Amino acid sequence: MRAEIFSIGTELLLGQIVDTNAAFIAQRLAEVGVPLFYKSTVGDNPERLRAELRRGYERSDIIICTGGLGPTEDDITSAAIADVWGAPLEIFPEAQEFVEGIFHSRGRTLTANQLKQAMLPAGAVMIPNPVGTAPGFMIEKDGRTAIVLPGPPNEMGPMWRETVAHYLQARSGQIIFSRTLRFVGIGEGALELELRDVIHAQENPTVAPYAKTGEVHIRVTAKATSEAEARALIAPVEGRIRDIAGEYIYGVDEETLEEALGITLRARGLTLAVAESCTGGLLGGRITAVPGSSDYFLGGVISYSNEVKVKLLGVSAATLDAYGAVSAETATEMATGATRVTGADIGISITGIAGPGGGSAEKPVGTVYIGIAAPGIAPRAVRADLWGDRATIRQRAVQQALLELRRLLTGMENN
Amino acid sequence: MRAEIFSIGTELLLGQIVDTNAAFIAQRLAEVGVPLFYKSTVGDNPERLRAELRRGYERSDIIICTGGLGPTEDDITSAAIADVWGAPLEIFPEAQEFVEGIFHSRGRTLTANQLKQAMLPAGAVMIPNPVGTAPGFMIEKDGRTAIVLPGPPNEMGPMWRETVAHYLQARSGQIIFSRTLRFVGIGEGALELELRDVIHAQENPTVAPYAKTGEVHIRVTAKATSEAEARALIAPVEGRIRDIAGEYIYGVDEETLEEALGITLRARGLTLAVAESCTGGLLGGRITAVPGSSDYFLGGVISYSNEVKVKLLGVSAATLDAYGAVSAETATEMATGATRVTGADIGISITGIAGPGGGSAEKPVGTVYIGIAAPGIAPRAVRADLWGDRATIRQRAVQQALLELRRLLTGMENN
Repeated sequence: MRAEIFSIGTELLLGQIVDTNAAFIAQRLAEVGVPLFYKSTVGDNPERLRAELRRGYERSDIIICTGGLGPTEDDITSAAIADVWGAPLEIFPEAQEFVEGIFHSRGRTLTANQLKQAMLPAGAVMIPNPVGTAPGFMIEKDGRTAIVLPGPPNEMGPMWRETVAHYLQARSGQIIFSRTLRFVGIGEGALELELRDVIHAQENPTVAPYAKTGEVHIRVTAKATSEAEARALIAPVEGRIRDIAGEYIYGVDEETLEEALGITLRARGLTLAVAESCTGGLLGGRITAVPGSSDYFLGGVISYSNEVKVKLLGVSAATLDAYGAVSAETATEMATGATRVTGADIGISITGIAGPGGGSAEKPVGTVYIGIAAPGIAPRAVRADLWGDRATIRQRAVQQALLELRRLLTGMENN
Repeated sequence: MRAEIFSIGTELLLGQIVDTNAAFIAQRLAEVGVPLFYKSTVGDNPERLRAELRRGYERSDIIICTGGLGPTEDDITSAAIADVWGAPLEIFPEAQEFVEGIFHSRGRTLTANQLKQAMLPAGAVMIPNPVGTAPGFMIEKDGRTAIVLPGPPNEMGPMWRETVAHYLQARSGQIIFSRTLRFVGIGEGALELELRDVIHAQENPTVAPYAKTGEVHIRVTAKATSEAEARALIAPVEGRIRDIAGEYIYGVDEETLEEALGITLRARGLTLAVAESCTGGLLGGRITAVPGSSDYFLGGVISYSNEVKVKLLGVSAATLDAYGAVSAETATEMATGATRVTGADIGISITGIAGPGGGSAEKPVGTVYIGIAAPGIAPRAVRADLWGDRATIRQRAVQQALLELRRLLTGMENN
């Protein structure tokens, strides 16, 4: 069974957006054991799109298309698929109901061109879109299956997970099952060195490291005929990895660092507050990405200006004068202030220089202090020297703050 | 003249890396006026790579390849090009000197396989690599030019800028120049309907809409022999678009909504604060993504718990009791509180139900209130009914808050 991906849209050929969909789908295909032979990008030109799809139809069993499903005239994917698969477009009542439902729920009326999104090739199976207005679809002819999804990654991703993944898994008959162990506090190179023997000893399951922003993931992947068999293959290898580097593992599979920390905080009945300067709210934003985080997260202060640091967090003007806003002393007072004003048990603060301006020889761009206040310890701060552009430094600062919180909670557990 | 891109490497088909090269090259081609018709990805399989390159040779004038130029056995690009272009590989003394020079300068000796990188198709022109060990090359036959570059973006980019760009500009003699108009407060379908006549009347420049999260972009693209000529072609079309829908335009080209708002706030000497509940800091995070935002952004409060709403923002317990945390009344008091406690001129608040839990019949998941407090107006709140998963609802709530801020600033200007 051969798969092929078509990313459709002139904006991709103009380089206006980077095609992350194709990489996402490529990974997912690898997971379900479907070999991918080609990825192509085509613009919004009906003739060229049809020619490419016809070629895909000839040489591949599964043709996955993203993009070009919206309401505008540039959205030509459904028509091209209809043509190549020989199935004329028709209104799907199910799809019409879906599109109308979204518009009504928003109190808006449907324009005629929106209804275009409800026209699918005859004989297709609609793929529900839990996030946007354009439904996707699958259609099969002579063993050639087209899987057609919208372009926005936040729509395509859920549709893949909820519908397409199950279909492909069933069709391939073979299971490729992975467990991903998530590490923080150790770099990819160091971790790979520690795990070298495990990585090289394995053929099934395979063991592969992936570097992420401020994290490393180790994916253990087994081929088997059932999930139970795959799990049995993975378990002893995971055991060896945990023996070697278990202290750096914070979670498994899709669990994020903020989720893992949330579970610990909830279990211990601890509450958390933040005080953010250069990250402007991104730490709070990430902590509250977790549903139910209100169980342990109380809130905090975005103290972007010095006045807010003083007025809302009680940082002393003398500290700001003597050490500056980006200093261990200010970070410590910010963290303490966060606990005092919110009543939280633990306070985490971030203050730093995200750039591009504002750096000095002593405190260059990327200098960040993370402050921590918690029961039973003296409030303290650690310095991190981060690198990258403004966005990257801010992301890394948030990651570093979560890592310090993890260290704190691990330390509290051991006492 | 038609161009085509091939990204070569099995790691791309496995989704292990995202292909940023293709987007980079696509943008650069657009800038020098070379139309790109296809982008394809092929793995390290000699047979399939040759077949794809042969097809590129047949249908395109310029074939750009990245990847597969290194010293290992998987690096098969040069051999495939040599085959299709009918030019056997041979040692290029210039390339050999280059590769040896790099190794000697690092105090390392050259292994035999490294020398492979100095073998180029006969008649090719070497493209120097200022960063890595693998030189690139160009080769032409019957008007078909292959431009072959290494895969690492930090090598490919400089080679493009220093060599390839000049060659292509000279060859095309034509410029493609775009302006992107950025809209908020109107959907893609509605905007396209309003602009239908403009869109269809145009051949040069072309006018095309692109939907983004909570925004629509209209790109006006002209072909010309100089940037000045292109701008002259674009100006009257942009004028017509502004006449029809100018009220929804917040910015041009790369300018983000938060940047545009920052420029207005700075120009008017207004300061801003936020109070965030369901977004947990994401609004502040987005506002502070702009360098220099400390000129107008003071900070704010992440009031995730009701206690923090009362204690830090001064929301009255009676309001919370009577109307709930997700209500126009609470949103209004949060916005007012943000201005009071920070001293900012304008306060923007967000309170809502991001889900997946917490919804009710009256206030389902996606119900969000945006509160606004500003000089000269009565504090107020607007309700938005958003949809999507938790992350999408939170993103859309932030976008909606920025849109309300824009409406406020526009209204203040008109008074």
